[in-house]
Amino acid sequence: MTEGTSRIEAFSDGVFAIAITLLILEVRLQHVGSEGSLGTSLIVLWPYYLAFALSFFVILVTWIAHNDLMRLVRETTRPLQLANGLALFYVTFIPFPTAVLAAHLDGADIRTAVAFYCGTFVLGSVAFNLLVETISRGHLLRPEVDPRTLERVRRGYHITFLIYVAATLLALVAPWVALVLNVAVRLQILRVHFHRPAAAVPSPKRHSLPL
Amino acid sequence: MTEGTSRIEAFSDGVFAIAITLLILEVRLQHVGSEGSLGTSLIVLWPYYLAFALSFFVILVTWIAHNDLMRLVRETTRPLQLANGLALFYVTFIPFPTAVLAAHLDGADIRTAVAFYCGTFVLGSVAFNLLVETISRGHLLRPEVDPRTLERVRRGYHITFLIYVAATLLALVAPWVALVLNVAVRLQILRVHFHRPAAAVPSPKRHSLPL
Amino acid sequence: MTEGTSRIEAFSDGVFAIAITLLILEVRLQHVGSEGSLGTSLIVLWPYYLAFALSFFVILVTWIAHNDLMRLVRETTRPLQLANGLALFYVTFIPFPTAVLAAHLDGADIRTAVAFYCGTFVLGSVAFNLLVETISRGHLLRPEVDPRTLERVRRGYHITFLIYVAATLLALVAPWVALVLNVAVRLQILRVHFHRPAAAVPSPKRHSLPL
Amino acid sequence: MTEGTSRIEAFSDGVFAIAITLLILEVRLQHVGSEGSLGTSLIVLWPYYLAFALSFFVILVTWIAHNDLMRLVRETTRPLQLANGLALFYVTFIPFPTAVLAAHLDGADIRTAVAFYCGTFVLGSVAFNLLVETISRGHLLRPEVDPRTLERVRRGYHITFLIYVAATLLALVAPWVALVLNVAVRLQILRVHFHRPAAAVPSPKRHSLPL
Repeated sequence: MTEGTSRIEAFSDGVFAIAITLLILEVRLQHVGSEGSLGTSLIVLWPYYLAFALSFFVILVTWIAHNDLMRLVRETTRPLQLANGLALFYVTFIPFPTAVLAAHLDGADIRTAVAFYCGTFVLGSVAFNLLVETISRGHLLRPEVDPRTLERVRRGYHITFLIYVAATLLALVAPWVALVLNVAVRLQILRVHFHRPAAAVPSPKRHSLPL
Repeated sequence: MTEGTSRIEAFSDGVFAIAITLLILEVRLQHVGSEGSLGTSLIVLWPYYLAFALSFFVILVTWIAHNDLMRLVRETTRPLQLANGLALFYVTFIPFPTAVLAAHLDGADIRTAVAFYCGTFVLGSVAFNLLVETISRGHLLRPEVDPRTLERVRRGYHITFLIYVAATLLALVAPWVALVLNVAVRLQILRVHFHRPAAAVPSPKRHSLPL
Repeated sequence: MTEGTSRIEAFSDGVFAIAITLLILEVRLQHVGSEGSLGTSLIVLWPYYLAFALSFFVILVTWIAHNDLMRLVRETTRPLQLANGLALFYVTFIPFPTAVLAAHLDGADIRTAVAFYCGTFVLGSVAFNLLVETISRGHLLRPEVDPRTLERVRRGYHITFLIYVAATLLALVAPWVALVLNVAVRLQILRVHFHRPAAAVPSPKRHSLPL
Repeated sequence: MTEGTSRIEAFSDGVFAIAITLLILEVRLQHVGSEGSLGTSLIVLWPYYLAFALSFFVILVTWIAHNDLMRLVRETTRPLQLANGLALFYVTFIPFPTAVLAAHLDGADIRTAVAFYCGTFVLGSVAFNLLVETISRGHLLRPEVDPRTLERVRRGYHITFLIYVAATLLALVAPWVALVLNVAVRLQILRVHFHRPAAAVPSPKRHSLPL
């Protein structure tokens, strides 16, 4: 009656896919005045494109990290369902701070908007740290996974948590730098074993800076 | 040509995943006036965050309960498709009472809004009771499942039905207490075998207070 | 490299699940004036509940019929992808006539609204007839399926097509009767082998009035 | 720990299914004035129907092409996840240019709107070209696939890229011709082996003009 992690992965994939697709609903011409030509309106809408692209990238990387993490797991338990639920709570929330960011990226409230946006990632990081703890304490690792892998994943999550806190504080002073820092963290997460095909490194060394 | 329950589970997972993700569409800055700073607006929006979090939690627990229930089932029949359809009808409806709740949580109509919100769970409870009856009368249990399991699940669903009716009536007098009661019921559903990993208890003793 | 019908079923399930869940987005308090109490508003909103329930039922039955039909199919071809695409086009369109119906169910334009709503099912019926033709001409039936099954399915689809045309014309005179006729057709589709479990009748006799 | 391409296909299917279903949210009566009868409003809404149908067709064909392409792939790597992510970025973006197109199809800004719409397909073509390159450089082809197949697929993608650029420029002069050209390209993609069932041609000759 154990089912591994296929149901929880399918549900999570669904939530990720919907959240990433809903982002486009916030990009609409009505957000800019209808004065001027359509061409001008399409250009003035740039903060919405940027926020859309940014959050798309964030959710995509989070999906990849979630994928990598769940591949280490051998079965679903109640605590795993709840910790994963909290991680999905964060993912479904992302469209709102994205809309806030888009609406204020070229306005006076940019500092607040970016801090709110970055603060969401702090919440997300807490959720993913909790997910790693749940896997660790529940001894949910697949038998073939080197236990040191999880240790390194956990350390990576601790570090990214600190970076997200720093980015949120930084946003109050230099919002654009905070946004760049957020992109940089994700690029680092992706780069870790970018050029090594998944099959070649079957067990560990996956995340060093996940989420 | 029997296909077990994989198609019906996949469809249901899809509906759950979409309903839970659509909740965020109701959290929008336009719901509070644009006077004051962005920071103030983000704080004034608290009823929307709370309603979002509450309904996210409700749908997540419902998904977990649905999962647990369908794991006991051995095949899909027409009545099961219809009873499950009614359960999904309830799930897709949730975003509307959530929006009503969010809009009136700090207003004069809070009693009506919370009663409407709780009343939705009464409907949902009817649907899930019907689903359990359908499984029982159709003899759809997997052969390895102890028949007493279903008996206990059914009793659990009867009790939660009564609690949801009580919460709805309570809402007309003490709306906040009704909301807390709703959370408490779900925590109880989750706690039942929280500390026992799924694999250790393969067949029964799952739900005692589901949905 | 043949993959059976699993990808096309997964994609279709996704579209059905999303279309059925999006219906709730049309149920909103803003559609009725904000005068009067919340209780009154929730009652005045009845056309929206009714249209939501009706279309939920329609999509659910269509999903069940689609399921039953695809179970007869042994592989995916390009024409099948296109005919199925047309069927999904119809399914994704349903939220719009549903919104039109809800907004005019208690107004002067009820005849036009119901005719438009019923007309959508004529389009849908054309799509499903085409899907059956595609399966028939492409010889896509699973070998174990009795060929007479498809003949009876096809005849059923022809009849429902005529009923949907009749309902659309009827809508211009007696809109409520047309709506009831639509529900009746779906109940008939479901009833055909309601009391026989799927496993007992593995091959034919499934649809006599599908879609 | 290699998982083939099932997770990435499931996630992509989800995104395609959601993007194609969200298109209908842009078809709403509010877009035309409420003066005149409902019948008139439903007719005046024709640009929205047309844009909806057009983009539905585009996403459907893109899904079919994506399907065909991923069937050639033997495993998921980080670069494949990213290249596929860019392709999905394009797919999720489509609802926005569709909304722009619908709102300006019978107005003065039709040239800009169609050019913007066609320009999106140039971006999409870049993403799919990148995806093919990633498969090629990562040696991700299934062993049983004839290497010349990928060569022909890649050439096809190069040609469609040029056609999309041409259509975008053409849109500034003759917008309707540009739209027809876009439909024609997709019909050509589909026609390539329209009458040959998938099973008969198991390996190559699939795409000659994909995307």
